[in-house]
Amino acid sequence: MALIVQKYGGTSVADAERIRNVASRIVATKEKGNQVVVVVSAMGDTTDDLIKLANQVASKPSERELDVLLSTGEIVSSTLLAMTLKDMGHEAISLSGAQAGIQTDSAYSSARILKIEAKRVIKELENGNIVIVAGFQGITDGMDTTTLGRGGSDTTAVALAAALGAEVCERYTDVEGVYTADPRIVPEALRLPEIGYEEMLELATYGSKVMHPRAIELGGLYGIPILVASSFCDKPGTLIHGGISMEIRNKVSSIAHDFDVAKVTIVGVPDRVGIAAGIFEPLAQAGISVDTIVQNASVDNITDLTFTVSKSQLPAAMEVVKPIARSIGARECVSDSKLGKVSIIGTGMQNTPGYAAKMFRALSEKGINIQLITTSEIRITCIIQEAKVKDAVRVLHQAFELEK
Amino acid sequence: MALIVQKYGGTSVADAERIRNVASRIVATKEKGNQVVVVVSAMGDTTDDLIKLANQVASKPSERELDVLLSTGEIVSSTLLAMTLKDMGHEAISLSGAQAGIQTDSAYSSARILKIEAKRVIKELENGNIVIVAGFQGITDGMDTTTLGRGGSDTTAVALAAALGAEVCERYTDVEGVYTADPRIVPEALRLPEIGYEEMLELATYGSKVMHPRAIELGGLYGIPILVASSFCDKPGTLIHGGISMEIRNKVSSIAHDFDVAKVTIVGVPDRVGIAAGIFEPLAQAGISVDTIVQNASVDNITDLTFTVSKSQLPAAMEVVKPIARSIGARECVSDSKLGKVSIIGTGMQNTPGYAAKMFRALSEKGINIQLITTSEIRITCIIQEAKVKDAVRVLHQAFELEK
Repeated sequence: MALIVQKYGGTSVADAERIRNVASRIVATKEKGNQVVVVVSAMGDTTDDLIKLANQVASKPSERELDVLLSTGEIVSSTLLAMTLKDMGHEAISLSGAQAGIQTDSAYSSARILKIEAKRVIKELENGNIVIVAGFQGITDGMDTTTLGRGGSDTTAVALAAALGAEVCERYTDVEGVYTADPRIVPEALRLPEIGYEEMLELATYGSKVMHPRAIELGGLYGIPILVASSFCDKPGTLIHGGISMEIRNKVSSIAHDFDVAKVTIVGVPDRVGIAAGIFEPLAQAGISVDTIVQNASVDNITDLTFTVSKSQLPAAMEVVKPIARSIGARECVSDSKLGKVSIIGTGMQNTPGYAAKMFRALSEKGINIQLITTSEIRITCIIQEAKVKDAVRVLHQAFELEK
Repeated sequence: MALIVQKYGGTSVADAERIRNVASRIVATKEKGNQVVVVVSAMGDTTDDLIKLANQVASKPSERELDVLLSTGEIVSSTLLAMTLKDMGHEAISLSGAQAGIQTDSAYSSARILKIEAKRVIKELENGNIVIVAGFQGITDGMDTTTLGRGGSDTTAVALAAALGAEVCERYTDVEGVYTADPRIVPEALRLPEIGYEEMLELATYGSKVMHPRAIELGGLYGIPILVASSFCDKPGTLIHGGISMEIRNKVSSIAHDFDVAKVTIVGVPDRVGIAAGIFEPLAQAGISVDTIVQNASVDNITDLTFTVSKSQLPAAMEVVKPIARSIGARECVSDSKLGKVSIIGTGMQNTPGYAAKMFRALSEKGINIQLITTSEIRITCIIQEAKVKDAVRVLHQAFELEK
C-alpha cells in the first residue's frame, strides 16, 4: 500500500462539476489500494475576490488579517471536496493547515514552513480516511494563521509528501505537463515524460509558468518525485525526479522564455569598491527584485553596469537608481522596457562544449540580436528584443532538435 | 474602564460600506474609554450561498464538513472588520472561535458551548486591541470546528460577555429594539426601553423574531444585560436585564404572534397510561418539534389529544401519528394547517387576576374564535385562525393600552 499526495489547483476545483471530477480521480487512486492525501487550492477566482473585498474596506489591509481572510478560500474548497467524497460513499475528512500541523514562521503573506507535525493526518489515514488538506496555509506557534505566498499550495503538497514519506506527489492543474517549449509558440513541442529537479527549477525560474520554483526546490531537497499532469484528461504528464538516466540528462531538454524583462544600464560608472553594493542595496530596500546583473569589463576604471527587472518594476527602479548614478559620478542612466529572454536548459550542458555557440549562431542566423548573456551550470539565457522572443523559441527548438 | 461586548448581525456587515459604518460605531465605543470585544455574523447571504455550494456537491453534506465550511463566513467578516479598524488607525485583531477559546461539544451544526477559555481574548485586550471574534463557531477538544446552530452568533456574544465579565452585551442588527407588538401590524406600537429576561424569552419563543431564545436564556443565567438595537441608526434600543422595577413588571408588556401553526387532533383516544408517550416519542424520533399539547378532560375514558407543530412539519407529523392512532383504537385523526397564535406577555400576570378574561373578551368582541389556550406564569397564548392573527394583535394591543 503506497501513500500518494495529490494536489489540485484552483481551476480543477472551480465549480461543483469539477469538484466531482476531481473526487472521481481521487477515488480511482484510493481504489488501487493507495492511501491518499489531497491538497487543494481555492476555487477558481476565490483568492482574487477576497483580495478585492479587503481592498474595498482598507487602503492597506493588515497582513495578519489578510492571511486569515485568504486562508478561508482553501478551507471552503477542502470541505466541499470532502463532502463530495463522503457523498460518493468514501470516508474522507478535511483538515485546515493548522489541523494538518503545517507550522510556519510568522512572515504573513509569504510564510515559510518550519515543520510539519503530521500526527493528525496519519491518524485520519489510519482510520481509513482520504485526507483533504487546505493548501497555501499554516499556523505560527502563537496559533495565528499564515499563508505561504506564491506557489503556496504546491509547497504544502510537496512538504506534506516529504513529512509523510509519500511515494509521489501528484500535482494536477489544467496543464498537461512540462514541454520542450511552450506549445502555444512551438506547436511541435513535445511533452517531456521526465525531467530532473535542477532543470525543472531553471525552467520554472526562467519563464515556464508550469510550476513555482519553490515547491520544485523542496521536492529536490527531500527527493520527492513530483508528477505534473492535468486533471482534465488522462495523459501521463511529466515526472520531476532525481533519477534521470545519464543519456537523457546529457542534452538540452527544453527552451524557456519570458516576455517580461526590462533593463537598466548605468553608463560610465567609476569602477570602485562598494559601487555595486551602493546600487543594489537601495533597490532591495525598495522591494525591487533584480534578476540578471551584468557588469562589463572595466576600461580605464570606467564600467557599465546593467541589470534587469520585471517591466512593472522599471519606473520604481529608475527612481531609485537615478540619484545614485548622479552621486557616484556615472555618465548616464538608460532603460529599455521592451525586452524578453530565452533560455536553453539541460543538465548535460557543462560537460558538452558547443551548446552556447550553437545557441548564439541559431539566433544570429535568424537576425536576432543578443543584448545580454547569462549562464548557469545547466542553462544559457539570452536577453533579446521582446518582439523576437517567439522566433527565438522556435529557432532554438529546431536547432536543438527537441521535436524528435 | 468598562468592557463591552458588541455583536453585529449579517445585514450590518453585508458590504464594505456597512462594515465601515460598523467600524465607526466600534471606534466611538472604544473612544469613550471602553475595552471592546466584537462578535460578527457572516456577511449578508454568505451562509446561504455556502449551503447552496454544499448542496451542489453532495446530496447530504457531511455535518462535520458543513460546519467547517460555514465557519469560514464569520472568519471572512471578522478579518474584514479588523482590517477596516486598523486602516482607520486603531489597533484591532480578529480571532476565530477556536482562537477565542470557544470550546463546544461535538454536536455538529448545533453545538453547545461547554466553556470559554478567554486567555487569548484577554491578552489581546490588554495589548490595546479591539478584539473581533468570529461568531457562530467553536472548537471541540479534538480541535475540530463546530457551528452553534440557530442564534449562534448571539450566543457567542452573550457567552463571551459572561466569560469576560462584560458590563453589557450590545446586540446590533437592522431591528431597532423590542416593541409592544410588531410595528408592521400595529403602527402605534411602542419600543420598550427595557424588558426582563423571562418576558423576552417568552416573546422570543412565542413569535417575536427579534432574538433567538437561546442567547436570552444564557444572558438571564449569567445576569448579562443585553442591549437590542439597530446598527443603522442611533436610537437607544431595548435593554434586556434582570433589574426591571416592580411597577414596570406589573403589567402586560407586549403582544407576540406567530403565523406558523398547524394543529393535529387525535379524536377518541382511549384514556390509558402510556398513551401520550406512545404518541410523542415517535414524533420526537422523527425530528418533529411539537409545540403546544392539550389533552381534554376524559369522559368515559375517551379523550381528545391535540398538539401543534410548524406548518412545514405537518405532513411528517400526520404520517407518524396516523398508524399510531389506528393501533391504539382512536376514532380519527384530523389536522388544520391554517392557524396562528397570539400571546400576551407580562411578568405581573400571575399576581393580577383578570388578564386572561380581558384577553378572551377582547378577542370574542372582535369575533375571533379561540381554538386552544395555553398559559405560562407570564404568558397567555391563544391559537386562532391564521387569517385573524393581525386583528387579534391589534385588538389586544388596544385592550391592554400598550400604545400609552
